[in-house]
Amino acid sequence: MASIWCAFNLPDDALTELRAGTEGYELTHEPSDATTVVVGQPDPAVPLASPALRFVQITTAGYTRYDTDDFRLKIGVPVCNSSSVFDEPCAQHLLAMMLALARQLPQTVLEQAGAKGWPADKIRTDSRLLRDQQVLLVGYGAIARRVAELLAPFGLDLVAVRRNVRGDETVPTYPIEKLDELLSSADHVANILPANASTDGLFDAGRFAAMKPGAIFYNIGRGTTVEQGALVKALSTGQLSAAYLDVTDPEPLPSDHPLWTAPNCWITPHTAGGHGPEWKRLVRHFLDNLRRFEKGEPLVDRVM
Amino acid sequence: MASIWCAFNLPDDALTELRAGTEGYELTHEPSDATTVVVGQPDPAVPLASPALRFVQITTAGYTRYDTDDFRLKIGVPVCNSSSVFDEPCAQHLLAMMLALARQLPQTVLEQAGAKGWPADKIRTDSRLLRDQQVLLVGYGAIARRVAELLAPFGLDLVAVRRNVRGDETVPTYPIEKLDELLSSADHVANILPANASTDGLFDAGRFAAMKPGAIFYNIGRGTTVEQGALVKALSTGQLSAAYLDVTDPEPLPSDHPLWTAPNCWITPHTAGGHGPEWKRLVRHFLDNLRRFEKGEPLVDRVM
Repeated sequence: MASIWCAFNLPDDALTELRAGTEGYELTHEPSDATTVVVGQPDPAVPLASPALRFVQITTAGYTRYDTDDFRLKIGVPVCNSSSVFDEPCAQHLLAMMLALARQLPQTVLEQAGAKGWPADKIRTDSRLLRDQQVLLVGYGAIARRVAELLAPFGLDLVAVRRNVRGDETVPTYPIEKLDELLSSADHVANILPANASTDGLFDAGRFAAMKPGAIFYNIGRGTTVEQGALVKALSTGQLSAAYLDVTDPEPLPSDHPLWTAPNCWITPHTAGGHGPEWKRLVRHFLDNLRRFEKGEPLVDRVM
Repeated sequence: MASIWCAFNLPDDALTELRAGTEGYELTHEPSDATTVVVGQPDPAVPLASPALRFVQITTAGYTRYDTDDFRLKIGVPVCNSSSVFDEPCAQHLLAMMLALARQLPQTVLEQAGAKGWPADKIRTDSRLLRDQQVLLVGYGAIARRVAELLAPFGLDLVAVRRNVRGDETVPTYPIEKLDELLSSADHVANILPANASTDGLFDAGRFAAMKPGAIFYNIGRGTTVEQGALVKALSTGQLSAAYLDVTDPEPLPSDHPLWTAPNCWITPHTAGGHGPEWKRLVRHFLDNLRRFEKGEPLVDRVM
C-alpha cells in the first residue's frame, strides 16, 4: 500500500477531508522507508533520504528551505508548492494595505480607540485617491499577476521587475537590474520577493534613498529582503511617507522593536496569505495534485 | 459685469485657481441682486430670491436641502451637484472598508498600538477572501456604478436596489421594494442612500433582523437612514458580524455614543469623499461647468 507522510498539523475538519480523499493510501505522521508521497513541511533532508518517494507537496507558497542546488539536484521527483492557494489572499491583502493608507483607516481606528473625536478636516485632507500614480511590483509571479488584475480598474501606472523576464507578464516588466532606476519614479513600491541569497537585504539605505520622496513601501514578500534599520530611518526622515509590512525579520517581531513605532509604519503579523478556509484549500490542492500525479497529468504549482 | 457668488470657503490655492478661471466675472462672498451664478452651499432661500440668477453649482454630492418640491418648482435655472468629484473617493473608501474587514486590519492596528504581539494564527483564521459572496448595493448612482467597476475583478455576486430602475445599470438592479427579500441573502450590505423622507430610518430593527446572519453592514450614504440603536443591538447579538460606517446621526458622533464601542463596529468621520486635491477638483468641476454654461453645452452632474 502506498504511504503518504502528512508532515504538518491540520485542524480536525481538514484532516477528515484529507483522510476521505486518500482512501487506499496509508496515512502516516512520521516518515518511513515506505513513504511514497509527502505533504506538508518536511525537513529537506528526509525526502532526500526516502527511497520510495515519488512526489513532494509543500504546503506553503515560500519554499526557500528546499530551493537549494543540493535539493534540486538530488530530489529526483516532482516538487510542488501551494502558491495557488495563497495568491488570492496575498493580492487582496496588498490591495487592502494600499487602500487603507490612501483612506487613512489606521488613523481613524486609533482615533476611535482613543479620543473618539471627529477630525474630518484633517482626515479628508490627508486622504488620497489610488489613481494616476505609479506602482512598482518588485517580484513578478502569481501574486503580482493577481494584484495587477485587482488594480486594473483604478487607472494606475503598473510596472514590475523580476529576475528573469519571460515576456508573458501582464504589465511592463523589466530585469531586476533596472530596480534602482524604477524606484525613482514609483509612488508605491510593493515588495513580493522570496527569501534567498540574491534578495537578502536588497532594500537597504541606498535603495530607500533612491525612492521618490514620499513614496510608500509595502512588504508581503519576506522580512530578510529589507534592512530594517534603514527602513526605520527612511520613515523617520520622511523620505518614505508610510510603510505597510506583513513580514519582518525576525518573526514574531519583538514588542520593543523600533519598527512597531516608526512614523506611519503599519504591521500585520504575516497574515497576508491567511483566510478562514486555508487548511481545507491546502488539502484540496494536495488532493487535486495527487489525482493528477496518479493519472500522469501536469501538476499545479510545480516548482521542481 | 456678471457676478459669481462664492458661497463656500476655499483654501488659498483653490481660491487663486477660482479667480484665475473667472476673469471677466465679479467674484463676491455675499449674494446680491446682481448674482448670476452661485457656487458653494447657499441657503436654499437665497437663490430662490435672486432675480438675475442663471446657474447654481452645489459643491457636494448630497443636495438634500435643495431636493424639495418647492425648490425644484421655483428655481427655474440649471442646478448641478458635484457628484463626479466624489464618486471615485467614495467608491475607493467603500472598497477600503470591505478589504480592511476581510483582512482584519483594524484588529492588527489595535494590536500594534497595544501589546505588539504576533497573533498570526487567530488573524489568519479570522481573515476572509472577498470572493464568492453576495454584495448588495442599496442605492444605485454614480458611486455604486464605480464600486461595481472596482469590484469586478473579485468574483463577487453584485446586486443593487434603487428607487427608480432605469435599465442602464451595470449590475442586476431591482426596485427598492425588493430590499427585504434581497437582504436575506447578502453577505455585504452597502448603504449608499441619500437623506430624504423615504430613506429616513430605513435600516431599522426589522431590516437588520432580515439580514443573513453574520452579514456586514457598510454606510457611506447618510446617517439618518439608520436606526442606530437597532444597529448597536444587531452587532451586540452577532446578527451582524461587523459594520463600517462613514456617516452617523448626529455628526460629529458624541464620544460617549454606543456606536463607538459596539462589537466590530468601525467608524470614519465622514471622510469617504475626501481626498487631498478635493478643493481644487471642486473648483475645476465648477469652471468646467461654467464654460459649458457659457457655450450652452450640457452640464455635468445636472440634478435639476
